[in-house]
Amino acid sequence: MNAEIIAIGSELLTPFRQDTNSLYLTKKLNELGVEVSFKSVVGDRRENLTCAIQTALSRVDIVILMGGLGPTEDDLTRECAAEVLRKPLHRDPQIIAALRARFASRGWKMSPNNEQQADVIEGAEVLPNARGSAPGQFLHINDQGGEAVVILLPGPPHELTAMFEEQCLFRLRRLTPSRHIATRELKIAMIGESMADHRAAPIYKKRTDVETTILAGTPGEIQLHLRAQADTLEAAQKKVDSLAEALEDEFDDAVFSSKGESMEQIVGYFLEMKGATLAVAESCTGGLLAERITSVPGSSRYFLGGAVVYDNSVKTALAEVPARLIQEHGAVSAPVATALAEGIRRKCNSTLGVGITGVAGPGGGTEQKPVGLVYVALTDGKKTEVADRKYPGDRNRIRQWATQQALDMVRRRLMK
Amino acid sequence: MNAEIIAIGSELLTPFRQDTNSLYLTKKLNELGVEVSFKSVVGDRRENLTCAIQTALSRVDIVILMGGLGPTEDDLTRECAAEVLRKPLHRDPQIIAALRARFASRGWKMSPNNEQQADVIEGAEVLPNARGSAPGQFLHINDQGGEAVVILLPGPPHELTAMFEEQCLFRLRRLTPSRHIATRELKIAMIGESMADHRAAPIYKKRTDVETTILAGTPGEIQLHLRAQADTLEAAQKKVDSLAEALEDEFDDAVFSSKGESMEQIVGYFLEMKGATLAVAESCTGGLLAERITSVPGSSRYFLGGAVVYDNSVKTALAEVPARLIQEHGAVSAPVATALAEGIRRKCNSTLGVGITGVAGPGGGTEQKPVGLVYVALTDGKKTEVADRKYPGDRNRIRQWATQQALDMVRRRLMK
Repeated sequence: MNAEIIAIGSELLTPFRQDTNSLYLTKKLNELGVEVSFKSVVGDRRENLTCAIQTALSRVDIVILMGGLGPTEDDLTRECAAEVLRKPLHRDPQIIAALRARFASRGWKMSPNNEQQADVIEGAEVLPNARGSAPGQFLHINDQGGEAVVILLPGPPHELTAMFEEQCLFRLRRLTPSRHIATRELKIAMIGESMADHRAAPIYKKRTDVETTILAGTPGEIQLHLRAQADTLEAAQKKVDSLAEALEDEFDDAVFSSKGESMEQIVGYFLEMKGATLAVAESCTGGLLAERITSVPGSSRYFLGGAVVYDNSVKTALAEVPARLIQEHGAVSAPVATALAEGIRRKCNSTLGVGITGVAGPGGGTEQKPVGLVYVALTDGKKTEVADRKYPGDRNRIRQWATQQALDMVRRRLMK
Repeated sequence: MNAEIIAIGSELLTPFRQDTNSLYLTKKLNELGVEVSFKSVVGDRRENLTCAIQTALSRVDIVILMGGLGPTEDDLTRECAAEVLRKPLHRDPQIIAALRARFASRGWKMSPNNEQQADVIEGAEVLPNARGSAPGQFLHINDQGGEAVVILLPGPPHELTAMFEEQCLFRLRRLTPSRHIATRELKIAMIGESMADHRAAPIYKKRTDVETTILAGTPGEIQLHLRAQADTLEAAQKKVDSLAEALEDEFDDAVFSSKGESMEQIVGYFLEMKGATLAVAESCTGGLLAERITSVPGSSRYFLGGAVVYDNSVKTALAEVPARLIQEHGAVSAPVATALAEGIRRKCNSTLGVGITGVAGPGGGTEQKPVGLVYVALTDGKKTEVADRKYPGDRNRIRQWATQQALDMVRRRLMK
């Protein structure tokens, strides 16, 4: 079976907004064995919306309409769907009562235009909206004109996802052939996309029973998405797992995550498992490393703190880097990266210390120390290692590469 | 005139990837006075692609096809467009020569499948690709079947944008009615979306000659996009400027940017203008404030550094917060926020110091100090002010609200 997802709303045809619900719905539909063949975006104009629905019905089995279910004149999805399907709309007194109750519970009076939210296409099942006012609708049509499914969902993502999970999944499962789908996601650190594909392709291309997608995540992260279908979940799982195993053999410890976890989460797991703590001193990454680590809930259990040492005087004040060392070698140098790592470790009394210094650009580069040059140091108080790298891309990408390098060094040290 | 933008590629129908080129193209088309009426995504399947092109030609004046111009079997855009338009394809020897030269310059041999990139639809102008191998095509059809424009562009964003700027804009300008469009973007700090709309709507609704879009940016930022058309650029500019002025009167100094600048940039401008420097000590925001400030190129001129003081001992070690103070009031308290701001300012010897402490969640909240409670302090060494706020949303949003609050306090202090 295949589907078309139509996002409705003139704001989605401006340069400022984009439909993102369709990514969520595609994931869920694929899990049911339904392929998405088309996605469309259409504004709140009657003839355009009618045309989009008509076109979709002519070319797919399942049509999902998102948005345009509110109480205003611009909300035309119910009317246009009914028109294309040549079915009447009936105003449902139960929905009106629920709407009135919803308004009353907030102490508001319901204006009459809200009643159009109670218009139900003949034959549709009403999908209650747990998080908003507009209910959805689910139509399974099976008559002389053929079989089709039309689903009307609200546009706001938190309303749409809740309604799809609770009201649509089980209904669709009844209609779709019972297939079981298993997925795996491997993440690989610090290898470029073309090199990763060059190494992975000979392995996954042999396995036509598993669909493999290779994607570049943030700089320093390559994702391999595996997906297989079978009659039982066990059989599908076996397919993806055996391919995942072959890929893990090829990439060895460059694979940092095999179930979708982020690098920050993995570093957190390792730190907690080893009972270790971390402190960081960063110059060119400007706080991004600390920000990534602390984006993980519970990171206060292993992350003690850090210093953002932009000015040279602050490298001395917060991370005890001797001013003389900076004068001798320059702020962007292996000795200063080392001193930052060792200094912040002492200051914060942590198990591990990281120091980063480099040229994020666009200005500040020289022939000897060009934009993209970064030194990353890691110490446990006994042994200090320093990586020097030259990263491609703009300021933002260079900063991301450098933090990924630092996190990967922490991960590799803790794995030992 | 109106347009449909069709993104082509099966990877755009997976849960992992999304077309973003259409946002860029929409902006450019709107500037030409062309509305985008539909956007579509279709995979690399012949019958689906043909159907999408056919549908688009039947409902808009300008059809833009993005992607599917490469050398592989999956690249069907040229063929399918020619089929729908009922025009033959001719293989262009000049393009083949250019492709060969491109491969030779890299020391590679060209495989024969690359030659399909030289297939040109009869009547099309070839659009050279300055950044890749696949040329684009521009067709202006004006015959008994009516008038239409069909443009074939490559999918990679850097190839597409360069080709559109250099090859398509001037061609489209000849075909579109000469209209001049002016835009303005106002950004408002620390006011919720519904409150901002409540105050702005009575002003912009009176002005039907200016199109106004209100959007929520990151937490603590509301954007008002204004756009007007007129016969001259001056007249269009006058329309948006007069509405912008009325909105600035209403929101007064909550408007932090009137030409699209980010809050980080604005804070940077003010710091440089005043010859002031900044240092920050952050607990719950975990480095996000420093990261936002240092994301601006050249921020080293006014940002000295900061401390990420997650552990209480680090609050003392890096920002001189007396341990006694933390014991007495708790780490999340106005006195500790104050001590962080004052301590980091002394340590870094900056003009201004900021301190942030709070509960970002999801864990760690109590009845007295719930998730979302944040204290933000700002000091210039003489006067210290503290804002205590309770922010809604998840960990990520709470952290963004808190950093926006801090930046806005710095901005307001420097404006005085």
